[in-house]
Amino acid sequence: MSTQLQQPRPETGRAPVRILVCATCRAAGGDPDAPRPGALLAAGLRDALDPTLDAAVSVETVECLSVCKRPCTVALSGEGRWTYVYGDLDPASGVETLLTFARQYREAPDGIVPWRERAEAIRKGVVARLPPLPIAGSR
Amino acid sequence: MSTQLQQPRPETGRAPVRILVCATCRAAGGDPDAPRPGALLAAGLRDALDPTLDAAVSVETVECLSVCKRPCTVALSGEGRWTYVYGDLDPASGVETLLTFARQYREAPDGIVPWRERAEAIRKGVVARLPPLPIAGSR
Repeated sequence: MSTQLQQPRPETGRAPVRILVCATCRAAGGDPDAPRPGALLAAGLRDALDPTLDAAVSVETVECLSVCKRPCTVALSGEGRWTYVYGDLDPASGVETLLTFARQYREAPDGIVPWRERAEAIRKGVVARLPPLPIAGSR
Repeated sequence: MSTQLQQPRPETGRAPVRILVCATCRAAGGDPDAPRPGALLAAGLRDALDPTLDAAVSVETVECLSVCKRPCTVALSGEGRWTYVYGDLDPASGVETLLTFARQYREAPDGIVPWRERAEAIRKGVVARLPPLPIAGSR
């Protein structure tokens, strides 16, 4: 956990962060009737959220992020922040990895967490990122 | 060009569409001093925009979409629409492909263009998609 997390920046720490988890894709060779890895990851994340520390973090499942070959796939977004898409996350160990990253992301200006502070699964799993998108009335 | 393009839907046809082009990544083995493929694609798109037909379409270059191995990489976004990221686009032929797709995207509810209407480069080049993100004041 970085120093940033212990000293939240008031200008960014309150803004909501959304974790979108693709609940559609299947693990390669997986039982088609088994719960999808993304559904397990989303459930694990919801269980692990700290009601106080993570009050501004939401977990949502989405039908398809079109990264079908790299489950689990997630996206992190927040107003005024870069949006990131990550793949190759394990439905079990990915919970702690993602929750830690979501807290870093929440505290970072523009959502850009310094490279050296990112977990290996986050560094290797990046699929794409998008710049902060304008909001209604801003243009 | 689809029938949709000849009969714009008034509820969607006016909303701006942004094409974000990554101008950072280099073609594999490319001359490091040559113009980046994304810069060429963005310039081609701007030249090809029809001032009347594409008044609601903007072309912007961005520094990095983190899809570094699949240039050219672009994203299409618009308020209330799914955001799409595409890679493997040719800087020359990609102009017509993308402009056609941007017009389809602009007319499609939620930005979801029917699969059968998408060009092959669009079908094959998808990197990721993101659901419409909430705008300020909507939550």
